[in-house]
Amino acid sequence: MRIDGRSSCDLREARITRNYIKHAEGAVLIEMGDTRVICTATVEERVPAFKKGMGEGWVTAEYSMLPRATKLRNHRDISKLKINGRSQEIQRLIGRTLRTVVDFKLLGEREIVIDCDVIQADGGTRTAAITGAFVALVDACRYLMEKGLIERIPITDFVAAVSVGIVDGQEMLDLCYLEDSNADVDMNVVMTGRGEFIEIQATGEKAAFSKRQMDLLIGLAEEGIANLINIQKNVLGAL
Amino acid sequence: MRIDGRSSCDLREARITRNYIKHAEGAVLIEMGDTRVICTATVEERVPAFKKGMGEGWVTAEYSMLPRATKLRNHRDISKLKINGRSQEIQRLIGRTLRTVVDFKLLGEREIVIDCDVIQADGGTRTAAITGAFVALVDACRYLMEKGLIERIPITDFVAAVSVGIVDGQEMLDLCYLEDSNADVDMNVVMTGRGEFIEIQATGEKAAFSKRQMDLLIGLAEEGIANLINIQKNVLGAL
Amino acid sequence: MRIDGRSSCDLREARITRNYIKHAEGAVLIEMGDTRVICTATVEERVPAFKKGMGEGWVTAEYSMLPRATKLRNHRDISKLKINGRSQEIQRLIGRTLRTVVDFKLLGEREIVIDCDVIQADGGTRTAAITGAFVALVDACRYLMEKGLIERIPITDFVAAVSVGIVDGQEMLDLCYLEDSNADVDMNVVMTGRGEFIEIQATGEKAAFSKRQMDLLIGLAEEGIANLINIQKNVLGAL
Amino acid sequence: MRIDGRSSCDLREARITRNYIKHAEGAVLIEMGDTRVICTATVEERVPAFKKGMGEGWVTAEYSMLPRATKLRNHRDISKLKINGRSQEIQRLIGRTLRTVVDFKLLGEREIVIDCDVIQADGGTRTAAITGAFVALVDACRYLMEKGLIERIPITDFVAAVSVGIVDGQEMLDLCYLEDSNADVDMNVVMTGRGEFIEIQATGEKAAFSKRQMDLLIGLAEEGIANLINIQKNVLGAL
Amino acid sequence: MRIDGRSSCDLREARITRNYIKHAEGAVLIEMGDTRVICTATVEERVPAFKKGMGEGWVTAEYSMLPRATKLRNHRDISKLKINGRSQEIQRLIGRTLRTVVDFKLLGEREIVIDCDVIQADGGTRTAAITGAFVALVDACRYLMEKGLIERIPITDFVAAVSVGIVDGQEMLDLCYLEDSNADVDMNVVMTGRGEFIEIQATGEKAAFSKRQMDLLIGLAEEGIANLINIQKNVLGAL
Amino acid sequence: MRIDGRSSCDLREARITRNYIKHAEGAVLIEMGDTRVICTATVEERVPAFKKGMGEGWVTAEYSMLPRATKLRNHRDISKLKINGRSQEIQRLIGRTLRTVVDFKLLGEREIVIDCDVIQADGGTRTAAITGAFVALVDACRYLMEKGLIERIPITDFVAAVSVGIVDGQEMLDLCYLEDSNADVDMNVVMTGRGEFIEIQATGEKAAFSKRQMDLLIGLAEEGIANLINIQKNVLGAL
Repeated sequence: MRIDGRSSCDLREARITRNYIKHAEGAVLIEMGDTRVICTATVEERVPAFKKGMGEGWVTAEYSMLPRATKLRNHRDISKLKINGRSQEIQRLIGRTLRTVVDFKLLGEREIVIDCDVIQADGGTRTAAITGAFVALVDACRYLMEKGLIERIPITDFVAAVSVGIVDGQEMLDLCYLEDSNADVDMNVVMTGRGEFIEIQATGEKAAFSKRQMDLLIGLAEEGIANLINIQKNVLGAL
Repeated sequence: MRIDGRSSCDLREARITRNYIKHAEGAVLIEMGDTRVICTATVEERVPAFKKGMGEGWVTAEYSMLPRATKLRNHRDISKLKINGRSQEIQRLIGRTLRTVVDFKLLGEREIVIDCDVIQADGGTRTAAITGAFVALVDACRYLMEKGLIERIPITDFVAAVSVGIVDGQEMLDLCYLEDSNADVDMNVVMTGRGEFIEIQATGEKAAFSKRQMDLLIGLAEEGIANLINIQKNVLGAL
Repeated sequence: MRIDGRSSCDLREARITRNYIKHAEGAVLIEMGDTRVICTATVEERVPAFKKGMGEGWVTAEYSMLPRATKLRNHRDISKLKINGRSQEIQRLIGRTLRTVVDFKLLGEREIVIDCDVIQADGGTRTAAITGAFVALVDACRYLMEKGLIERIPITDFVAAVSVGIVDGQEMLDLCYLEDSNADVDMNVVMTGRGEFIEIQATGEKAAFSKRQMDLLIGLAEEGIANLINIQKNVLGAL
Repeated sequence: MRIDGRSSCDLREARITRNYIKHAEGAVLIEMGDTRVICTATVEERVPAFKKGMGEGWVTAEYSMLPRATKLRNHRDISKLKINGRSQEIQRLIGRTLRTVVDFKLLGEREIVIDCDVIQADGGTRTAAITGAFVALVDACRYLMEKGLIERIPITDFVAAVSVGIVDGQEMLDLCYLEDSNADVDMNVVMTGRGEFIEIQATGEKAAFSKRQMDLLIGLAEEGIANLINIQKNVLGAL
Repeated sequence: MRIDGRSSCDLREARITRNYIKHAEGAVLIEMGDTRVICTATVEERVPAFKKGMGEGWVTAEYSMLPRATKLRNHRDISKLKINGRSQEIQRLIGRTLRTVVDFKLLGEREIVIDCDVIQADGGTRTAAITGAFVALVDACRYLMEKGLIERIPITDFVAAVSVGIVDGQEMLDLCYLEDSNADVDMNVVMTGRGEFIEIQATGEKAAFSKRQMDLLIGLAEEGIANLINIQKNVLGAL
Repeated sequence: MRIDGRSSCDLREARITRNYIKHAEGAVLIEMGDTRVICTATVEERVPAFKKGMGEGWVTAEYSMLPRATKLRNHRDISKLKINGRSQEIQRLIGRTLRTVVDFKLLGEREIVIDCDVIQADGGTRTAAITGAFVALVDACRYLMEKGLIERIPITDFVAAVSVGIVDGQEMLDLCYLEDSNADVDMNVVMTGRGEFIEIQATGEKAAFSKRQMDLLIGLAEEGIANLINIQKNVLGAL
């Protein structure tokens, strides 16, 4: 039994609310237990310099936390004039994994900018951000369809993510903050609707780990992600 | 009749939700129509250098918008390495006006940091931030009382704020974004529970204004702020 | 009697020197007692991005202090990599108030950049900057006329500013630094030659204030500004 | 046969030169084929704020490339005032993985700063940096031993890293730049001398991947890292 | 005959005004023809970290130009977040040359900060800044004497500087901007009251130069600096 | 006899290795005793804004040190968000002196960017950088010739540089770090193959100096630079 009463292969309560911000083309609030992230998708009718004139689109992401999303207050990046290293790593991950399922030819020469802002953090913010951002991305594409700017939804598959880890010698799915901060091994897994992997990041925070432990963790993640993709399908319908 | 059906002296629907973020000592969501601002209050057991060793506390504020709080996406400050001039002006205003009602001797040598983050903007974000931040500030003081760190709530009066302006020749209370962007004159007013002024900022955006127009606007603001302070009293009880 | 012997409704000695810097299109030294500000106006044959192609001009302002303009030395902004919050607020005010009296169609697609650099500070630097900058702005427009680049001076009215405040319970005009730092209430007022208001910023630094006190202060400001506009007219002649 | 004539399970020629810079406590040049990285280890007799007074040490890392380490010249970070996101991610990885094998109690309250500077890049710079930095770290610890500042080498195991990937449907060890830029899947693996994992980062750059593909890649990495640790043992002797 | 009527060995009209800013311990306006620089000296009762606890003082300098000190407006450093390379070079020169004549033991553990701000530039701003800053430095030392904080003026000799150059094949003293921008060779010379050199910077801007040309330029500089030191002596009296 | 056994007019062992980095158009390792600098030359098919459309090229330089090039570790510029003042001064010197021997018309509208990165510092890094960068610059021009992009090598003369100084009353050539840090007078000299001067920077670090001392130092430098240009000619052949 885990500190919040879950079994080792249980997700926390997951909820996805669409149209959370009225101004954005896609705007999702995702809640995984006490972790809450606002994910918006903005359509910009221009592409980065390295994509100009190629007739193709791009997807990029930014990630940040409100100062009191965490137990101790974090300084805003601007007060130090430096983007937080962890945030930069996470936003690179979000952008990279979403791009894997976008058909840039179909999207056309425009960019979709994903903003993931953590309102309240309780572990698993990066994976929640990916799962929520995918829904916002689809909504932004539907907005483009409705406007007649694209002909088909340029998304080739679902994408969701979850964290797994080893705490007190036990493999567990979807760690909350207390579990995460005590984990010996911590793994973030991103998968597609077809059950393939897009990204696996396994880190021995306090101890090295074996191949067998890794395989157990991947097994837990596969189950969890399948459930999350079902939730995405429930709120989105077919692509 | 205004674009959203209000009369010229009507506030938008105002709602204040306490304990909105579980980590913060004070955490409020304030909604004024479609304007939504998260206001947190953080207790820090240290004071800025200029206050050190004086046995007195301090209150400071930061204000920011999520990138898609607005119709067009705003770049994050960190991507330009410059804090937005408007944000800086607003956070100075929030801190200054709240400090007017804090007894720093009673607060003791500690700082309360107010964070106002606009989730969705539809006009009047700075005044909503002040009205909401006041409630978060009181909650942080109550947290200090419960912990036995202070003996009395070091707040000497209520504080709330509202915007007023002249649109199409008509004085109006609590402008929404569409009204605000068409206003000839724009005024932000901050008042205490005793009905005195802490700050008045009147700007002739498109036209100069007369003393008479200003007096009419101040009258509207007095009414609106009295209502907002009633809402604060409803959610907070007596100080 | 005030610390420098003035009565409550006296301005300090005010002097405006044109052509103070040989390189600038408009270049004014304004002295209000011991406060000395250099205001230059630079014509740039381009406009900011948001004005491009509209056939209209723009006016913007920057404000800064020399490190020893004040009693204690201030660090230069560049040494902290952050523009001083107070400076940013002031330069936004200067730009905003001057723009109110400029006919941007007549100015044509060019920008006038105002630089206000405080050489010596003794209270009222922001209002002195506005009063001096207006004269530099007119001189830059006359330069454009002489060059045959515009047909008429695109300035619709005079603009000047002054500070007023309540010190030891007494309303006073044009506070020097010592008065300003002891003021309970501090107000900056910007008016036109026609006697209308462009901006009023009233702040209860140490105490809230009543409507009656505000009205008294505005009365003092009206008088003071009328005198300053007379001085502007003496050095400039008719517009 | 690969573009440089290797078989799929061959490392490039690997060479580690100790004492490469005369000033540093540890200073290594590591060459993996045409990839060349200078790794220095600096002993600093202080620890970061969060470690102060705990009687424990810390290890941190910085990673950078010379502007012409790559085919196209890269701007220096300072010219953009932003640390490159990729560099920041890599230096976090280097620090994290080295810390796993350091006994901070034995190290005592001091910090070892690792600097990895890429002189010439041809793929696999981050894994080469880890493999070389480990040797520099050991040399810095030996310097502390010789100075009598520590009693035992505070390193609990060897650490080395390698990249693997899938190129044209073929799993390969130790990708050079041309292979890396064509890879469908790219994986960086960090392991200990005992054959356990510290970090696995698998990314589907162009395509998602299956569990089976991942297992094949991990198998290749295990072999390659065992060889690299042998080279470390040859240049360092027993710990 | 030069463009402004001078012979090749004439200085421009040089004027030094003391007590130019009322707040600073030393405050000089130096004018060399149309070049005008404000030089202030600030006493700070602390020293940089590398001097702490040594019982010795330090002198440092900062140099900047107002945006319209020049024909074309310069952006402020803060708007680019980068200190201008030329300014940085000049302020290093000013600090270094002044330090050569300061007895840091006599000064005691305190710092004198020199600020040189160019109000109007017409060539030779760096050498004017040195000549003026020396006077401000002495005034700050006299302030320390009057306060009883030091026993003797810790200045060992006079220091002044001048530019020389070759324009149209002719060696010239004290170049104005027009001459400077056409010079083939440009040299800045800093000397003491005893006639020795502290710094010589000779640059072949458009052409290399011979030893003989250099010797001629140094001869001109010696004469010019002797005159400037006489002016310093006239305004300061004996040290 | 000097600390490393040289006589006062001896250079340290000087070695220039071409093609040191495979990616760069020119890439040199220069070693002067224990001072080692990598100098690369990059051809960019664009020029700075102020050169656009003039049919002429440009040469610019950047200079930096690895953190452990020196006895104590230096922070990277990016960690302070400020370019080191000394580095900025040096890179301006390198660019300026190289430009003196480039025929920009012959080079055509393109820029050559020189990067000088100090791997190990032992005095004289700036002069070594100039001597090495000249060779890299020529190699980049030869690359342009081979590509058929220019018709003649646009270099009008050789350029090399050396430091000289007065240590313990003795004039010396090519100071190592220990000598340099004890020098009373320090001079950097840049000369052409024809024996003319491009730049002379003489600084009285601890004492003022006489004309006679300066002449002795220049004599030493002339000899040293003639030797360095011979080494350049040996590795490069005729221009």
